[in-house]
Amino acid sequence: MNPVVGIIMGSQSDLPIMSEAAQFLDSLGIKYELTVVSAHRTPERMLSYARSARERGLQVIVAGAGGAAHLPGMVASLTSLPVVGVPIKSSNSIDGWDSILSILQMPAGIPVATVALNGGRNAGILAASIVGASDAEVGKKLDDFKKSLKETVEESAKNLEEKGWKSILDKE
Amino acid sequence: MNPVVGIIMGSQSDLPIMSEAAQFLDSLGIKYELTVVSAHRTPERMLSYARSARERGLQVIVAGAGGAAHLPGMVASLTSLPVVGVPIKSSNSIDGWDSILSILQMPAGIPVATVALNGGRNAGILAASIVGASDAEVGKKLDDFKKSLKETVEESAKNLEEKGWKSILDKE
Amino acid sequence: MNPVVGIIMGSQSDLPIMSEAAQFLDSLGIKYELTVVSAHRTPERMLSYARSARERGLQVIVAGAGGAAHLPGMVASLTSLPVVGVPIKSSNSIDGWDSILSILQMPAGIPVATVALNGGRNAGILAASIVGASDAEVGKKLDDFKKSLKETVEESAKNLEEKGWKSILDKE
Amino acid sequence: MNPVVGIIMGSQSDLPIMSEAAQFLDSLGIKYELTVVSAHRTPERMLSYARSARERGLQVIVAGAGGAAHLPGMVASLTSLPVVGVPIKSSNSIDGWDSILSILQMPAGIPVATVALNGGRNAGILAASIVGASDAEVGKKLDDFKKSLKETVEESAKNLEEKGWKSILDKE
Amino acid sequence: MNPVVGIIMGSQSDLPIMSEAAQFLDSLGIKYELTVVSAHRTPERMLSYARSARERGLQVIVAGAGGAAHLPGMVASLTSLPVVGVPIKSSNSIDGWDSILSILQMPAGIPVATVALNGGRNAGILAASIVGASDAEVGKKLDDFKKSLKETVEESAKNLEEKGWKSILDKE
Amino acid sequence: MNPVVGIIMGSQSDLPIMSEAAQFLDSLGIKYELTVVSAHRTPERMLSYARSARERGLQVIVAGAGGAAHLPGMVASLTSLPVVGVPIKSSNSIDGWDSILSILQMPAGIPVATVALNGGRNAGILAASIVGASDAEVGKKLDDFKKSLKETVEESAKNLEEKGWKSILDKE
Amino acid sequence: MNPVVGIIMGSQSDLPIMSEAAQFLDSLGIKYELTVVSAHRTPERMLSYARSARERGLQVIVAGAGGAAHLPGMVASLTSLPVVGVPIKSSNSIDGWDSILSILQMPAGIPVATVALNGGRNAGILAASIVGASDAEVGKKLDDFKKSLKETVEESAKNLEEKGWKSILDKE
Amino acid sequence: MNPVVGIIMGSQSDLPIMSEAAQFLDSLGIKYELTVVSAHRTPERMLSYARSARERGLQVIVAGAGGAAHLPGMVASLTSLPVVGVPIKSSNSIDGWDSILSILQMPAGIPVATVALNGGRNAGILAASIVGASDAEVGKKLDDFKKSLKETVEESAKNLEEKGWKSILDKE
Repeated sequence: MNPVVGIIMGSQSDLPIMSEAAQFLDSLGIKYELTVVSAHRTPERMLSYARSARERGLQVIVAGAGGAAHLPGMVASLTSLPVVGVPIKSSNSIDGWDSILSILQMPAGIPVATVALNGGRNAGILAASIVGASDAEVGKKLDDFKKSLKETVEESAKNLEEKGWKSILDKE
Repeated sequence: MNPVVGIIMGSQSDLPIMSEAAQFLDSLGIKYELTVVSAHRTPERMLSYARSARERGLQVIVAGAGGAAHLPGMVASLTSLPVVGVPIKSSNSIDGWDSILSILQMPAGIPVATVALNGGRNAGILAASIVGASDAEVGKKLDDFKKSLKETVEESAKNLEEKGWKSILDKE
Repeated sequence: MNPVVGIIMGSQSDLPIMSEAAQFLDSLGIKYELTVVSAHRTPERMLSYARSARERGLQVIVAGAGGAAHLPGMVASLTSLPVVGVPIKSSNSIDGWDSILSILQMPAGIPVATVALNGGRNAGILAASIVGASDAEVGKKLDDFKKSLKETVEESAKNLEEKGWKSILDKE
Repeated sequence: MNPVVGIIMGSQSDLPIMSEAAQFLDSLGIKYELTVVSAHRTPERMLSYARSARERGLQVIVAGAGGAAHLPGMVASLTSLPVVGVPIKSSNSIDGWDSILSILQMPAGIPVATVALNGGRNAGILAASIVGASDAEVGKKLDDFKKSLKETVEESAKNLEEKGWKSILDKE
Repeated sequence: MNPVVGIIMGSQSDLPIMSEAAQFLDSLGIKYELTVVSAHRTPERMLSYARSARERGLQVIVAGAGGAAHLPGMVASLTSLPVVGVPIKSSNSIDGWDSILSILQMPAGIPVATVALNGGRNAGILAASIVGASDAEVGKKLDDFKKSLKETVEESAKNLEEKGWKSILDKE
Repeated sequence: MNPVVGIIMGSQSDLPIMSEAAQFLDSLGIKYELTVVSAHRTPERMLSYARSARERGLQVIVAGAGGAAHLPGMVASLTSLPVVGVPIKSSNSIDGWDSILSILQMPAGIPVATVALNGGRNAGILAASIVGASDAEVGKKLDDFKKSLKETVEESAKNLEEKGWKSILDKE
Repeated sequence: MNPVVGIIMGSQSDLPIMSEAAQFLDSLGIKYELTVVSAHRTPERMLSYARSARERGLQVIVAGAGGAAHLPGMVASLTSLPVVGVPIKSSNSIDGWDSILSILQMPAGIPVATVALNGGRNAGILAASIVGASDAEVGKKLDDFKKSLKETVEESAKNLEEKGWKSILDKE
Repeated sequence: MNPVVGIIMGSQSDLPIMSEAAQFLDSLGIKYELTVVSAHRTPERMLSYARSARERGLQVIVAGAGGAAHLPGMVASLTSLPVVGVPIKSSNSIDGWDSILSILQMPAGIPVATVALNGGRNAGILAASIVGASDAEVGKKLDDFKKSLKETVEESAKNLEEKGWKSILDKE
């Protein structure tokens, strides 16, 4: 089976954030491909990557970049697939504002589905939900994932109420 | 045929922005439903809307709200469908920053696919591309739409080069 | 005697900040309950917590959360009790702006009594003052607390004037 | 019966915003007093106002000011009553950030219950909820108010769904 | 003689700002070409424009765009010519911050010479100074231009001192 | 008697703001001179103005400018007199942040006494208080001015309390 | 001889910043007093400090505070002496913006001479320049100080040019 | 051969950033000079440096400074050469915003070619591209540099695809 999600990043230094998307897709058994594509240093590579994405079987592209982050928006301009953008807070970034605004504020006609700063994991979840929009099995797995989030909170609450906050804080 | 996109907004005053999503979907022949659901004033209505969305046949929900905009994130917490969030610059908003940050900066586990401030039209395009992720016909229509964007720019460029910028500016 | 203040937080990782509210209430002998309630991961738990708050005897709810912080505002939409919101600067937060704005900028009809970023202690003081609004004994204790703040400053000033700033700085 | 809420503002030019608090209290039959008290131009007046507030029967003070807004915080330092702060976007304000931050970011020990920018109405609702924390009758009225908010949204939704958004937009 | 400056913009709606660059170059007799090139809607056109710029005789490219402005940075990635970027405050821009940051904060390796928000005229002056870096005649014209700026201020000062500020203000 | 305050601005377009400083000084009978000096367009004029200021009898310089406002800081680097800086929100300014930060954030060694955005009147008052630091008569006049501020507020409060806020709002 | 400068701070934790003002005044032989005065915790102390400042011989007050910093503005409202405000970046401050805006953005009538964030030393220099406005000897010392700044830069430049930047960087 | 690029900085503490410009120019064999020039501490030195720049053979000046950074703009006002400005995030800077805005937002007539925060290397590349605007040999070297950027990305991508992201992350 071919990958249905493409994960790309502007630089290998973005891997610690972007690998969280891959990890989530792995946990749900969704196939993906992952590589480095730079809008500014390999513009032609970006073009061919984005132009061929749909025919290669991808359903969604997850693109992360920092600073003046042009990769997600440029890829979105080159394909009709949905593109999830991950703003990354790189060194010399201005607290991440530069990356957020250059991904989020796309002009009319070319949307990017932007997630939170450094939101690699959330990008993976969003990509899965896009695959799951028309795939009941993936939808089911996402519902299970949501249930697990709920159970973790309920356990944490039970633990906190039973042991008391002083005991919890002391242990930390 | 049932609607595949749900468009909701926190208040009817958001309609001028959110109707742009509906207009785009209309132009592509994608069925949608559109209504008002308020996270803060009708929390139970929001719950039942989001909980039943997948079984009612929706594939994606587009949610817009202004100020401390909780609707998109709360809906995303209640469904495994992808949720597109539209920050809206309402009166007394702080230049839209409040709406952007309370939609975009969702915690790990619950992503919202955020688009630009007042990006109703882009939300419609993103919703269409999510539907089109697994629907080649919609994908084809989106490619045609992108082509029309390109042609508009090329015509504009040709016009500008032929007539000269002074003549264009004078006419405005 | 039943608790009159409910302290809730979106995640146990918020405990170091939120426990400061508990500590202050302890120092004044005001009863409280403290637990984890997540708007995004346990929406139904949040609903039942907030809906039952007044009948369980609570007079005020203190809610803290980070990032796109929806817990305080959602709880405020579900109860007629006053809700004190504590913005928390979590990792990947954008300097806390996201949490501040998604708690503070509530739409007309649903206020949240927002305190300073990471202001767990101030939230406890504000909750006490709300209890003390109609309880002269608590009011008296708050006046004593204010007096102690004043005395600490006066001692510090006396110390600084007597010993001189160079001697104080050297000791640090 | 004496007023239980004191509404003060730094300048009469803040009246259009601050009167919205008064209007809400009127609608619930809660007694209030309303006047001008300036932290910077009438510091002694502010001192005596705040120092005497509790003994005059007030349960909560609502204070609004713009720019470097010191009134809410200074009043909070002078009374053990809860103080609701209303940031006001005055002319030459920097988009309201100055007012928000100088009210919200109070140091440990002296909280101000801050509401949204220009949130006069929300300040009135919050003041009512503080009065209602120990007053079941006011609590009941606030629940009714919340119900009315809900009904307004439901009617708006029904109207929108029945007439269709195009017909609604055309009428505007 | 061939154009030495290329002026491009993402949309014809940027013409009122970008034409100020053209006007300045006209005033100095520097040849330029001006057209519309969109990074997001005509990516191939952008590629061929930028790739061929040096061989067509251009010495500098001036590129303006609003929102998530990718045109200046993408063009800079595609040519070794200096690129002057003009952030434009478009409607739905967030006070221009989006455009500024997505042009200014380019990653290491691909600089854009960014000028002030809406700084079309300054972009023209900067382009002229780049042409003038190796062209003494243009340098001379720029020195004359600076002299004229100085004389305008001196006249204004003289006028103000002689007539008095009250008389000047009255006339306005 | 010679002027003791020098009021300068980067452009005659700043006159509406800067004339408010002059008006205040007039009201106190403090002599001043007022003219246009541009850091960027008349650097030598700025140099000679600042270098000669003390010997010409000035005690304080008030300098206003917008955008990347270098005039106040550059003048402060050229004289040992105190310099009051007035950030001005000019067109194409980014909400005044550029002017504020480029005046306020001077490096160690060269302070500028910065006042609020568009604070021409406050700059005049600050200049007067600097003159009054060693001049009891001016100090007395400033005390009288403060008293008038107080009386205005007290009258406004009395009026508001007597007539009621509804009557006041109706008249506006 | 009595002190002519009063240095006050909201908390002893501000001493490391505020002592830099004292150090500069020491270096010029200008007498000062230094103590802790809190607007929020010792309001009456602040009142009496500020009200008596001029008659005690002070010519200028330097006041520093962090967060919602009300001390400089409140003191300025209580005296006709010039007040220099020092914004301090305390823990839980929002990057210092809160302190800057609540000191800088004072309403018309009550200016504060604001210096840069954490600008204790600059506040001392500004206070000296205010004393020196009418005191030629202090003015002379400030000119000497400026000369020393210049000489330090010139030496640094000479050193850099002679040794080369690589040798300088290697040594660090 | 004489230097064609002048690199200046407000303080030797800026050398680690600014030396990156020098390093890039070295790598291309472009001659430069590098020294310290302070706008605020050595204004006359700045004047003579900038006024003589063109006749000394410089084609472009690269100027870096932090905080209220006036050096790039002041130098730009004193020469008709292009000036590249490097905002530097110094200690007590407000996240670099002060430096960015006081360099970028120059008034009409006096542009500065601003690069990213701490963008010393990018300033060197931009300076080279300005030299290369009229120098085919330098243009050729810049094209080679761009090619090397591309190859580094392609190798990184190949490595990542062959080894898999888990293996790469493990090694780090």
